Amino acid sequence: MAPESVVEAKPVRSGRSEPPALRLSHRAGEMQASPLRKLAAIAEERKRKGIRVYHLNIGQPDLPTPPVVFETIRALNQKTLSYAPSNGIPEALEAWQKYLTHCGIAVDQKEIIVTAGGSEAIIFAMCAVCDAGDELIVFEPFYTNYNGFATIANVVLRPVPLDIASGFHLPSAGAIERFITKRTRGFLFCNPSNPTGTVYSREEVGTLVSLARQHGLFLLSDEVYREFTYEGTAHSIMSFPEVADQAILLDSTSKRFNVCGARIGALVSHNAEIVQTAFKFGMARLSVATVEQHALVPLLSSPKQFTGPIAAEFRRRRDLVYDKLAEIEGVTYYKPEGAFYIVIGLPVKDSDHFARWLIEEYQHQNETVLLAPAQGFYATPGKGLNEVRLAFMLNGEALERSLVILREALQTYSEKFR
Amino acid sequence: MAPESVVEAKPVRSGRSEPPALRLSHRAGEMQASPLRKLAAIAEERKRKGIRVYHLNIGQPDLPTPPVVFETIRALNQKTLSYAPSNGIPEALEAWQKYLTHCGIAVDQKEIIVTAGGSEAIIFAMCAVCDAGDELIVFEPFYTNYNGFATIANVVLRPVPLDIASGFHLPSAGAIERFITKRTRGFLFCNPSNPTGTVYSREEVGTLVSLARQHGLFLLSDEVYREFTYEGTAHSIMSFPEVADQAILLDSTSKRFNVCGARIGALVSHNAEIVQTAFKFGMARLSVATVEQHALVPLLSSPKQFTGPIAAEFRRRRDLVYDKLAEIEGVTYYKPEGAFYIVIGLPVKDSDHFARWLIEEYQHQNETVLLAPAQGFYATPGKGLNEVRLAFMLNGEALERSLVILREALQTYSEKFR
Repeated sequence: MAPESVVEAKPVRSGRSEPPALRLSHRAGEMQASPLRKLAAIAEERKRKGIRVYHLNIGQPDLPTPPVVFETIRALNQKTLSYAPSNGIPEALEAWQKYLTHCGIAVDQKEIIVTAGGSEAIIFAMCAVCDAGDELIVFEPFYTNYNGFATIANVVLRPVPLDIASGFHLPSAGAIERFITKRTRGFLFCNPSNPTGTVYSREEVGTLVSLARQHGLFLLSDEVYREFTYEGTAHSIMSFPEVADQAILLDSTSKRFNVCGARIGALVSHNAEIVQTAFKFGMARLSVATVEQHALVPLLSSPKQFTGPIAAEFRRRRDLVYDKLAEIEGVTYYKPEGAFYIVIGLPVKDSDHFARWLIEEYQHQNETVLLAPAQGFYATPGKGLNEVRLAFMLNGEALERSLVILREALQTYSEKFR
Repeated sequence: MAPESVVEAKPVRSGRSEPPALRLSHRAGEMQASPLRKLAAIAEERKRKGIRVYHLNIGQPDLPTPPVVFETIRALNQKTLSYAPSNGIPEALEAWQKYLTHCGIAVDQKEIIVTAGGSEAIIFAMCAVCDAGDELIVFEPFYTNYNGFATIANVVLRPVPLDIASGFHLPSAGAIERFITKRTRGFLFCNPSNPTGTVYSREEVGTLVSLARQHGLFLLSDEVYREFTYEGTAHSIMSFPEVADQAILLDSTSKRFNVCGARIGALVSHNAEIVQTAFKFGMARLSVATVEQHALVPLLSSPKQFTGPIAAEFRRRRDLVYDKLAEIEGVTYYKPEGAFYIVIGLPVKDSDHFARWLIEEYQHQNETVLLAPAQGFYATPGKGLNEVRLAFMLNGEALERSLVILREALQTYSEKFR
């Protein structure tokens, strides 16, 4: 398929004869492949060799999606799959409002923008408050995909280090304030937290609220694990009326309803300018998938019956993991108050090496485990080197067995690489 | 819901007592609300007053979605709606490959990333080749949402003006080359074009290819209207092997299959680094809606039976519009070679004023028309002031009637505002 003819352009102004080298953007180079996916590929190879691999690495829920989702999809009676309104179909906006009311959050439907998962809500919020080079303060370890969104939006994430010794709770206001610069535009935090399972107390969120008021910052609050709270209370940023104009709630249906593949999230704010801006970003991409918006209406409209059993199952798993970690020598851990993750310290120098060894070489009765090395959740080099994140995505029996394998493996590893 | 207690932060370093003013980002201010939507709201009011409004303004297809889409959705048998692979489910990748093969474009499945509509493909491509402040050359009038994507990605669009007198075809290589700067990273163009309906000849695309080779630029080719070609041939950027590494095909199922609400697009390139980068951006947002990926497999796998009748209907409409425009005095127009749009010049000073008057005041036998003023498709102020875009989204009878209304309205308008 050679061109029939090509119009030759006038000579290049620079007079070069060689075409200039082609290069991608710098941010293309900065984008890290998901660190969790690198080991997953090796795991697939290992499985083909007959080794069973327990996945402790990912946040893909294993529980069934409520059947009403598929029933709703099957009952859809549309002639044309048209663009939905850019802020969401009216039924979805009404359902989100009902859902938030169930959570004690009173908002108008006009204060909600339906997004393609929580991911898009985060990108819209970043772009609404930050220009290129502006900064958001995050607390590390943090959800690794914040990095990707920041790269797309040209936002700089400035990480405040947290400590496993305090269960990854927030430091004092003074310690956080040191990270505020002239370019700081807000805080981006996940509560309950992925990857740590930490639930911030009212005082902790209040610290951020107070700092935001003093410095004129926005509060980007990722609350997708709201229902997964086992100790204390998950305090929504929307429950601090003194920052009504500064609060941006970033939400997603994925985890709480086991509908990760639906990609339905929301951006919510009392600040009309923020919502209007997100609406405009929404207009550019036209709309969110129509079928899924319809499919999730029953869940959002009457959430507790669906989230209750799911959260109860994860509480059982959290309890089991917490109990079983006590039986593993040399592990540093705490009681995660929410979500379905924990970051633990291992008696190893390099958890990436350990995780790779586990998946490439180790087996205990033809089984091994796949871990998520915690370095991927840190932006500061050298942080979290001996830590891994565990996700509770296995049923009780498999979870228990995988922790036995972890214990045995640590012993073998310490003898081998002492 | 007042906070139970708030930890007070240490005194602000600047010693301010008043909290600093809260402001959104500059890019939030730069985001234009879709110009097409402003008038649409007024149209809704007018309809409530009993006036029938013919929508010539938008690209929302009125034809039915192929029933197999809904059949596929109803037949889906999944227990859990899980995250799909970030590059797309294997079935969708295979279907996209088949579809492209039908179009004479040979690519490997590894060269395809499934995206949330063509919109996401454009954002990923922009981020893959541009850093903040880098430039892409566009040809104006251009698809207005390119502005929104550029704002999200911090990319500067540099518009090359086109002329209605030449049917909005491309100028010479030399005229285009003048717009290349040190920050230019590529061309972004839509072929067949929204909003003009222009189909670029092989020579025209060849001009861009040649300039891209000389200056080391990328070619971002938006080909979502490929099937809607009535004169000449839509030459895919993938049919120029000499720029295999520079070509990025941006595609979408929305228009050609009447599945706008599905939000399934694709980014395709022979450049492995580009695809890998788009994959990483895709990993950050996890996945595209699973149900719709499945639903479109039958369409992509066997496209011609679906696109053929749709394109035939739009050809009839294009012919009708072209014939009827000849009956309207003072209108500048040309024969659109593709897509389902035309930009026409009206004998008015300000098409925005005319369109607003049409929708607010005018009626002909209790009916009026809603137009899209073309200013919204220009980045250069003062361009396209007397132009409007017409979209052929009405059946023949309604389309014919709406052009009669336009003719009558122009006469009344010219008498009223002479």
